[in-house]
This record gives sequence, structure tokens and C-alpha cells, in this order.
Amino acid sequence: MSHTLDDPDTPFLALDRSTVAANITRLRRHLDGLGVTLRTHVKTAKSLDVAAMLDHGRPVAITVSTLAEAEAFAAAGYRDIVYAVGIAAHKLPRVLALRQRGVDLTVLLDSVAQAIAVGAAGVPALIEIDCDGHRGGVPPHGPELLEIARTLVDSGAEVRGVLTHAGESYFADGDDALRAAAENERRCAVEAAENLRAAGHEAPVVSVGSTPTAHFAADLTGVTEVRAGNFVFFDLVMAGIGVCTPADLAMTVVATVIGRRPDKGWILTDGGWTATSRDRGTARQRVDQGYGLVADLDGRLLPDLLMTDASQEHGVLSIRPGSTAPLPDLPIGTRVRILPNHACATAAQHDRYHVTAPGSRTVTDVWPRIKGW
Amino acid sequence: MSHTLDDPDTPFLALDRSTVAANITRLRRHLDGLGVTLRTHVKTAKSLDVAAMLDHGRPVAITVSTLAEAEAFAAAGYRDIVYAVGIAAHKLPRVLALRQRGVDLTVLLDSVAQAIAVGAAGVPALIEIDCDGHRGGVPPHGPELLEIARTLVDSGAEVRGVLTHAGESYFADGDDALRAAAENERRCAVEAAENLRAAGHEAPVVSVGSTPTAHFAADLTGVTEVRAGNFVFFDLVMAGIGVCTPADLAMTVVATVIGRRPDKGWILTDGGWTATSRDRGTARQRVDQGYGLVADLDGRLLPDLLMTDASQEHGVLSIRPGSTAPLPDLPIGTRVRILPNHACATAAQHDRYHVTAPGSRTVTDVWPRIKGW
Repeated sequence: MSHTLDDPDTPFLALDRSTVAANITRLRRHLDGLGVTLRTHVKTAKSLDVAAMLDHGRPVAITVSTLAEAEAFAAAGYRDIVYAVGIAAHKLPRVLALRQRGVDLTVLLDSVAQAIAVGAAGVPALIEIDCDGHRGGVPPHGPELLEIARTLVDSGAEVRGVLTHAGESYFADGDDALRAAAENERRCAVEAAENLRAAGHEAPVVSVGSTPTAHFAADLTGVTEVRAGNFVFFDLVMAGIGVCTPADLAMTVVATVIGRRPDKGWILTDGGWTATSRDRGTARQRVDQGYGLVADLDGRLLPDLLMTDASQEHGVLSIRPGSTAPLPDLPIGTRVRILPNHACATAAQHDRYHVTAPGSRTVTDVWPRIKGW
Repeated sequence: MSHTLDDPDTPFLALDRSTVAANITRLRRHLDGLGVTLRTHVKTAKSLDVAAMLDHGRPVAITVSTLAEAEAFAAAGYRDIVYAVGIAAHKLPRVLALRQRGVDLTVLLDSVAQAIAVGAAGVPALIEIDCDGHRGGVPPHGPELLEIARTLVDSGAEVRGVLTHAGESYFADGDDALRAAAENERRCAVEAAENLRAAGHEAPVVSVGSTPTAHFAADLTGVTEVRAGNFVFFDLVMAGIGVCTPADLAMTVVATVIGRRPDKGWILTDGGWTATSRDRGTARQRVDQGYGLVADLDGRLLPDLLMTDASQEHGVLSIRPGSTAPLPDLPIGTRVRILPNHACATAAQHDRYHVTAPGSRTVTDVWPRIKGW
């Protein structure tokens, strides 16, 4: 591979390999210190090559958001997979096909109806616990948890344990709130597991996780594994809640200036929402970053320049409202990088990464992404 | 193909072929009455099969938003293509490769810098005109238009004409505003062409278009072609501005109920933003439809049920704020259809359509989508 970030037709994703490595090392060290295993969520990168950076190319325990991810990782030798979206019964044949190939694929559920179907299929399951009212799950106390577990066991399936996700931590404000979210996530999961064990279930797995709580957890007593995905790339939403800084963002969208409207204060690029996604996750944070911060091709941020609007194949760059910074002189043809609000959503718009060496524009590799469901 | 909408793993796109046909007929009749050609924008459907419905399988004049679309359509025999995003010079080799294969591919530009590059390549160009301050383009009057045209001609390239897009029509409110947007779009384009002709340029093409203005134009005197793309599928944004009704939406996302939270008033599905996109286009309309209206698998709308929130692989359905409608009893495993805010953005999340026969769940075809740039 001999080309550089100046060569591919824009828009495309650039991925800084050394930043990914640093982000992985940072979370691994933190979790090693807490004595708990990392079960990386591959939904952000959806890349065998990024996952290979987790442990020197060796297959590790992973979390997936789609069966397409499970199938791709299984084909690459991964054998310990949690599918962390509530199971729909019609997807069980694909789950069983993977299990028959020797993959320990565990599913997630939070209802008796699902437990009946999963039990009949004989698939081990984690029971989803609601720790913060964010999405699905049953309370850590109460009859639903035990009823689901009983249903599984009665059909001969294994209650693998409990799983919870502190989804509300993405809206936490400040270190104290993040530490509290992490402790609440831990406490709910451990209490649920203890309630299962008191009822005679082994429930060996106590799985928690989100990138904010994974980084802010100070004690994970009773937890057996932490799931996190975004941490490999990070994004402006994570920077906004204080989990990282913009310098930690490993993935950017490269776009080209295709127009200038000085009368409007606009620079137009060929990076529209097909390239960035429509995600406006920072809009509800203290600092709204529009569709993203803008850097030059070497990664230097352009002062107070944001991608402020998007249509299908056009991005609009303009100065942050309230700033007196001048609109930079970016001639037509200039390439820029957009730092995304939400790495998962931006990456999902693309089918590959252009991987760069540290401090260089040289593209060393092109890594494909797993698509579909 | 023997399966039905009950069979494929969810989420996926369902496409009602008869609604597409009716939407095409409606716009064709309107434009036939105005004596102007339709140059369909294929950026919404990105499908050779949908495009084949435009004129009984015969290649027609099309507009594209990416060179990937141009290349796919050229390979299928399409020979009259406008690439309606301002050209970046580094993309000209792909443009030239298509032209050398006999494709009359025209590019778009609005600056002298682009005209120098396009002129040197000898590619015919349309000059983009700004009719409503929405995005790019030069004013229909003023020196820029003539300077760009002169630059093209001096390098031996052809000034094919002018192109404008009434992007602000997507925010128009009411029939009068839409008619005014259509007339403004027409007037700006025609005036720009007349200014070019007065300066000695032939400028045979006067291209206007957006789905709202295409439908609301009452007179297109001086216009030679209308571009529209969304009209084949329509969406809730178009319904919100009165261009169609929800019954005209041809494309929906099929998802499965995977959880219920009656305590929260939520039904959870496996259709998250990877399936619907993050587009919230109706949020700025009079009626905010969340991430979309919800219908049963036969297409009957469920009263006041919206997809109100989305995470990567989860959708949240709940009752419209302020409504007293009860949360419907949708058992786990039930399939629903989500009517999208923005068909272009929702379709872009998928790589195929499951095509249904009129009034039936039977899937007659699976049509692929063109991806990437």
C-alpha cells in the first residue's frame, strides 16, 4: 500500500492505529487494576483488524450487536461471544448454527416469552437487568428475574448470569456523576446475581459496561466482566462528558472542500450525512459540536470551525456561533478531517478504514468493516 | 422467491412496488402536463431495479449524487447522467473514464477554480445557481456566473447550462409557499441561462428540481428538465409539508418487538438507528413524528404509536406525547413497520430492498442497493 490520505477519493474514514492502541492500553490497564476481564463490544469498529489489536491477534471474549458480527468473528476463530441485544425467537436458528460450530454464543433476554423460546432451543442466556431506566431489562429485585430464570431452567437451558448496561451514563455530567453511574451499574448487577444465586442458580457471569462507566469505575467487586466498545475510537460525545479529549479520537472522516460561500460564512465539502451520519449527539451536551470539529489533514484542529450542517453529499463548515474566529482560508480542493460526534454511527456509514501510521499521512492498510445484520 | 415479510431476519427494508409505480406515474403526469423532462435523481433508491420502473426498463436521463452511482448505472446502459454535487478535481479521472466509455456524464461547479480543472479535462459542466441561499451556487446575476463560463470556454470545455436546487423548499409551509418556491427556482434558473446566452453561451440545459417543487410547479417555462429523487418513495418529511400522505410511503423498515416496558410506556424493537438512520427531519415540522410512525406488518398505522427513541440496535416505540391512545398490545415477536422521516437516509442504512406485491406480504424480489462513493 503506497498511497497517502491525499489519494483516495473523498469522503472516507481515516483511522490512526497508534491512537487505537493507546485507547486500548488505557482501558486494559484500568480494568487490570480492578481485576476484571474486558469483553470488548465490537459494534463500534466492526473490524477483525481492530479486534486483533486487543490481544496481539489472539481471539478474545467479545460482545456483538448483530448476528452478522457474531458470524464474521466466529469465522475468524472467536469462540466466546455475547449477543447483547434482546433475542428475537426467529434469530435462534443462526445462534444454534454458530453454537454447533463450537462457538459459545450467549444470548440476552428479559421476558418469559423469550425464555420459553431460548429454553426450547437450549441456548445459554444472560438475563438483562435494568440499572437506570435507560432501555430494557428487569429490576434486580422482584419476581420477574426469578420467573425468567426458572423458565430457562425448566426447559433445560442454562442461566449464564446477568448483564446490565448503564446507558444513562452517556448523559452524565461530571466525574462524580460518572463514578456514581458506574457504582450503580455494579451494584444492580451484583444484587441481581445474588438474588439468582439465593434461588439456587449458579449465574456465574456478572456483566456490566459502557465506555463511560468502564473508565470511571473505582471498584468492580462482584463483577466478572466489563463490556465497552466506543473506547477504541472515542468521539466528541465521550469528550463532552469528560471520558477523553478530542486528541484521543482515533477515527475521522476525510472530506474535500468543494465550494465556498464567504457571504454566508460557509465552506462546503463533499462529506455529507452519508459520510458522518445524522448523529447530533453533542446537541444535548453543554458544548454543541454540530456534526463535528474540523481539523486539517495532519489532524490539527482549525480554531472554532465546525461542521454545522449536512445534506446527503454536502457538509457545511462554519465558525462556532458566538466565536470571533475568522473563517479559515481553505481553498477548493483542500482536504479536511471531521471529528465525529458518535464514532459508532459515523463508522456505520462506511465499509472500510484507511489506516495511518503514527504522525504520518501514509496509509498502511485498508481494513474492511462488517455490515448488515 | 417464496418467502414473505414474516421470514427474513429483522430489521430490513420492505418496498411496496405498486406504491413506487403510483408515485412515478403521479410525477410523470404532472411534468408531462408542464411539457418538461424528468431527470430522476437516483440518490434516494440507488437501485437499478427501481430505476427500471421509470420507463419500462429503458435507460432514462438520471441524476446521481456519487460516482459510484454513475458507474453502476453506466454499467447497466445509462448514457445521460448529471453528477449533481460540486466536482472535486481529484474525481475527474473517474469522470473521464466514464465519458470514454460513451457516457455523457456532466459535472457541476460554481467556482473558477473548479472551472479551470474541469476545462483542462474537457468535461462538459453545468454551473450551479443559488436560488434560495440553501447551499452552493452563484447568483443568477452578477459577474461570477459569466467568469466561470468564460473560464470553461477558454479551456475548450462546454458550458452545458445551469442547475439549481430549491433546497429550502423542504422547509416550506403550505401550498402557497411551495408554489412560490417552485416559481422562484424556475425564475432563477431561467434568468441565469438568459444571462449566459446574452454573453454568447449556448447553455442549452436549464435544470431545476426538488421533490416539493417538482410537484408544486405550475409553470416551467424556460426549464428543460426537472430533477427529483425522493418522489419514488416519499417519507414523513414530505408528508409533513403536504407533498404526499403517509399512505404514499413506499418504503418501510420491518422490525421485531423484543421487549416491553409497560412501566415506562415502551415497546422495544430490534430496529435501532442502524436500521432507520439518525434522521429526525420531522423534529422541525409542525408535527414531530419522532423516528417514524408505526404500522402493523400489513401496513395499517397503529394509532398514535411512534418510534420515539433509538440506540444502535434498539428502537423505542411509545405513544405520541399528549395522546390518550393506549399502548397497543404487541407481544414479543410481533413484526412492525416503521415509516421513515427521510427515505434517503433510511435507505442508505441498508444494502437491499425486500419487494412486495400489492396488498400482500409475499416478497417477490430482493433488489440490491448501490453503496459507497
